[in-house]
Amino acid sequence: MLADAPRHLAHQYFPSIFASTQTTMAAVARSLSTCIFCKIIKGEIPSFKLVETDLSFSFLDIGPLSKGHALIIPKDHAAKLHELPDEYLADVMPIAKKIATAQGLENYNILQNNGRIAHQVVDHVHFHVIPKPAASDEEGLVIGWPAKSDVVDEVKKYHQELLGKL
Amino acid sequence: MLADAPRHLAHQYFPSIFASTQTTMAAVARSLSTCIFCKIIKGEIPSFKLVETDLSFSFLDIGPLSKGHALIIPKDHAAKLHELPDEYLADVMPIAKKIATAQGLENYNILQNNGRIAHQVVDHVHFHVIPKPAASDEEGLVIGWPAKSDVVDEVKKYHQELLGKL
Repeated sequence: MLADAPRHLAHQYFPSIFASTQTTMAAVARSLSTCIFCKIIKGEIPSFKLVETDLSFSFLDIGPLSKGHALIIPKDHAAKLHELPDEYLADVMPIAKKIATAQGLENYNILQNNGRIAHQVVDHVHFHVIPKPAASDEEGLVIGWPAKSDVVDEVKKYHQELLGKL
Repeated sequence: MLADAPRHLAHQYFPSIFASTQTTMAAVARSLSTCIFCKIIKGEIPSFKLVETDLSFSFLDIGPLSKGHALIIPKDHAAKLHELPDEYLADVMPIAKKIATAQGLENYNILQNNGRIAHQVVDHVHFHVIPKPAASDEEGLVIGWPAKSDVVDEVKKYHQELLGKL
């Protein structure tokens, strides 16, 4: 049941020899010559591009969970969400809105994974826009929800701990 | 395996009689007197508040998937992501970053569901920040990933369709 996210992409796109490439886009604040998403942003790997802004790039996933499954990636190379500058983070959701609106979606999930055990495969922050065309485990994101109950006291205690760190 | 998201919240918080309440916060562009998340924003229902800005409110989920599971909600009442003004959308991810950083998270998922069959239960846009403490289906978000393969031609065709709508 554990996800294997865009491993297909990694298989398809990872070249056998990595060339060091000087970025020509001022907007690409950091990029890695070995990162497939940095290569897609720079046009070194073709993609089915959707919306592009100064800070973000989006395209259709070629191993989709459903028709219209799209990825939005910041142009800054960072592995995890909390490593990105705020301006890149702020740019993403309005693009998700554009992609959902263009497709006329009513049922869909936005998902962003950080870390291997949270199902991240490509170490460049990416947000999934995943249409859910039907109430089925055959298409779209499948979600399991092991919620804990009767933990309000624990939540309250942890809240006190967190307040000093925010 | 289908998720049942914050139904516990709905059970706990839905009052039997809904009072029409005039909002006193200028930042609450739209609110519903029957919406539990609008009530949390207005302080009519208590919560374990984390970060609050002019446009967003965040708090710990009391039926968490894992310790530190948080929700970020825009102060504008909209059921689905694509119905929100861009400024509200832009405000959310920097808050997710703050919450992840305060907790020192390395493995976590960001999830936002739209529509019943995509597991949305409360009809006010909410973004989950869900720590994934271990590679287990017992805690944190559980993800199923029914990816399609050999559909590049279909993706290419749909891409052509979409380009005219973006």
